[in-house]
Amino acid sequence: MSRLVRKSIGELKAYVPGEQPSDPGIIKLNTNENPYPPSPNVLEILRKFSSGKLRLYPDPVCTELRESIAAYHDCDPEQIIVGNGSDEILALCIRAFVERDSAVSYFDPSYSLYPVLSAIEGVRQIPVSLGAEFEWVDPPKGDSSLFFLTQPNAPTSLIYPKSKVSRFAAAYPGVVVIDEAYVDFADRNCADLALSMDNVIVARSFSKSFSLASIRAGYAVGPLPLIEAMYKIKDSYNVNLITQAAAKAAIEDADYMRGNVKKIRQTRERSAAALTEMGFTVLPSQTNFLWVRPARGEAKILFEQLKDKRILVRYFDAERTRDYLRITVGTDEEMDALLAALGAMMVNG
Amino acid sequence: MSRLVRKSIGELKAYVPGEQPSDPGIIKLNTNENPYPPSPNVLEILRKFSSGKLRLYPDPVCTELRESIAAYHDCDPEQIIVGNGSDEILALCIRAFVERDSAVSYFDPSYSLYPVLSAIEGVRQIPVSLGAEFEWVDPPKGDSSLFFLTQPNAPTSLIYPKSKVSRFAAAYPGVVVIDEAYVDFADRNCADLALSMDNVIVARSFSKSFSLASIRAGYAVGPLPLIEAMYKIKDSYNVNLITQAAAKAAIEDADYMRGNVKKIRQTRERSAAALTEMGFTVLPSQTNFLWVRPARGEAKILFEQLKDKRILVRYFDAERTRDYLRITVGTDEEMDALLAALGAMMVNG
Repeated sequence: MSRLVRKSIGELKAYVPGEQPSDPGIIKLNTNENPYPPSPNVLEILRKFSSGKLRLYPDPVCTELRESIAAYHDCDPEQIIVGNGSDEILALCIRAFVERDSAVSYFDPSYSLYPVLSAIEGVRQIPVSLGAEFEWVDPPKGDSSLFFLTQPNAPTSLIYPKSKVSRFAAAYPGVVVIDEAYVDFADRNCADLALSMDNVIVARSFSKSFSLASIRAGYAVGPLPLIEAMYKIKDSYNVNLITQAAAKAAIEDADYMRGNVKKIRQTRERSAAALTEMGFTVLPSQTNFLWVRPARGEAKILFEQLKDKRILVRYFDAERTRDYLRITVGTDEEMDALLAALGAMMVNG
Repeated sequence: MSRLVRKSIGELKAYVPGEQPSDPGIIKLNTNENPYPPSPNVLEILRKFSSGKLRLYPDPVCTELRESIAAYHDCDPEQIIVGNGSDEILALCIRAFVERDSAVSYFDPSYSLYPVLSAIEGVRQIPVSLGAEFEWVDPPKGDSSLFFLTQPNAPTSLIYPKSKVSRFAAAYPGVVVIDEAYVDFADRNCADLALSMDNVIVARSFSKSFSLASIRAGYAVGPLPLIEAMYKIKDSYNVNLITQAAAKAAIEDADYMRGNVKKIRQTRERSAAALTEMGFTVLPSQTNFLWVRPARGEAKILFEQLKDKRILVRYFDAERTRDYLRITVGTDEEMDALLAALGAMMVNG
C-alpha cells in the first residue's frame, strides 16, 4: 500500500458488482437487469441527437427531466434531485447527512453497497439483523443518523409492512432513505412518506423497471431542506445530456414500463411455482428477482454448475445469505432454460 | 438549516457553474466549450446504438475506452481510470489521498471547484497565491497531502515552465494532480510525469478539446498504486455506456480534435491581437480562452454590458480576478461579434 493513499482506503474492501460478461450466449440472471428493452422513444432520442448540442455542458440541475419526474410523482420539481445512477444518490446521502463521528444503519442482509459507501466516507456502520426468515425487526435505539431501508429488500425480495416502515421513520431521529430500486415490481410504494415526512427520502432508479441500467439514472424525492443539501455537494454536471434526455423519454412513457413489469411479474409467479415444485424454498418476491433456498444446502454448488452451463445467477457468500441463490427474472424462455438446467442437476445430483 | 444536515454542508458555499442559457441566439463565451462539434464518428455511434444494450449495466471499469486512452498515451490501461467528467476524478483524488486531518493545496487563482470539493470532504484548504502577473511561485513547505496544479492554468490561461512543475512534484511529499483540462490547446503537456513519477497524476477531460462537454467524460493517468486506490472508491458504474462509446470514438479520431484545436488557436491569436489593439491587457493564452484586463478597471461593467447584448463571458468577483474577464475562444464569427460589441462600448463608454 502506497504511503500516499489514505489508510482507510487501503484497508477498504471494494464493492463487487455482479459479472458483466460480453458473451451474448450467456443467460444473464445475475444483476437484476430488465430482460425487455426500454421504451422505443429512448432509442428515438438517440437517433435524432444533434451534434451541436454534444459540445455544450448539460443542464447542471436536470430541469426538464425533473419536471417529468415531478409530474410522475405529483410533486414539486424542487423536491427532486437526479443522480448518476441511484448509487450516486445513496453516496450523496451519506455525505450530506452523516457527521464523521456518527454512523449509518441498514438491515442485514440488504444492498451490499451500503457498508462500502459508509467505509469510503469513514463513518461507522451499524447493521441490524433481520429476523430468521428475513422479516422486519424493529431496529434498536442506536446512534446512527442515516438509515438505508431497502423496500422491497434485496437480496431477499421481500416487502416490509408499510405501517412498520412509517412507524419506524416517525420515531427515527435521523434521515431514513427508503431505497425503492425495485418498487415498480411491488404492490405498493412509500413515495407518499417522502412527500409528507420531514426526514424521509425515497430513492428510485431507471435501471430496473425502466430497462435503462446502461445510462445511469436515479433520483431522490424528499423534503426541500434535505434535497437542497444534496444539491450543494453533488458534482456540478453530474448527469450527462444524453442520460437526461433518455430518462425523460422513459418516464414520460411509463405505461410502456408498466407493460414490461406486468410480463415480468407473470414470469416471476410462474417461475416461483415451478421452483417450489422442484423442492426450493422460494420467498414471496415483490421484485424482479427470486430469493431461493435449495433443499439440501447446495446453493454454492448449484451456482457453479449453472455457471458451467452458461447461466449466471448471483451467490453471496456471507453468513446470512450463503444458503440462497438470487435469480433475476428473465424472459419466459430464459427462465425455462434455467428450470431445465436445474431439473437436470437435481436428477444427477 | 435542517438539524438533519451535516453542519459543514449547511455552511458550504456551493460551486457556481457558468450560466447555461437555452436561448440559441446567445453568443456563449462563458464556459470554455468548444465552438466546433465533436468527431462525426461520435454521432455515428449514437445513431447505431441498439436497444438491447440499453437495458444492461455498462462495463464498470471502461475496458475498451481505457484501451483506446492507453494507446493514445502509450501506457498500460491499468494506469487509467475514467470518471463521470474530470470533476469526478478530482473529487476521487481528495477522497483517496487526503486524510481528514490533512489539507488540499492549489494556486490562487485557479479552478474554483478545488476549495468547494475540499470543503465538501471537510479537509483544510491551503491556497498558494500566484505572483503579481499570475506567474509561478514556489509553494511554501506546508502540510497538505494533495496539490491541484492546473496546467495550463484557469482562469489565467498561462502555462508554467515544465521544469518548475517537475521540480516541485519531485520535492512535494504528497500527491500532485496536474489538471490538464486545457492542455490540448497548449504547446506542451506533463503526461510523461504521470508515467514516470510515483506521486503525479494527470487529469484530462473530453469536454474542451474533444468538444464533448455534454457526455461527462474525463480520466486520470498515473502510477498504479494511486489509480488502484481511486478504483476502490468510485461508484460501481460511474461512467455510462453511451459516454464510454462516444469518448472511445472521439479519442480514436484524435486528428479531428487536433484540426479543431488548430482553428481555435488561430482564432485565439487573432482575437488576442485585436483586443490588445483595443487597449486590453491580454495574457499569453495556452488554452481555449483569453484572460484579459480592460484598461480602466471596468471588467464588471463590460461583463454586464456584453450580457445585455446577449454575449456571455465569465466574470469572477474575487480579489485576484475582479479586474479581468475570461473570454472563451469561439468561432471567428463569434469573436468578430464580441470585438464589434466591445469596440462600440469603448467608443460610448
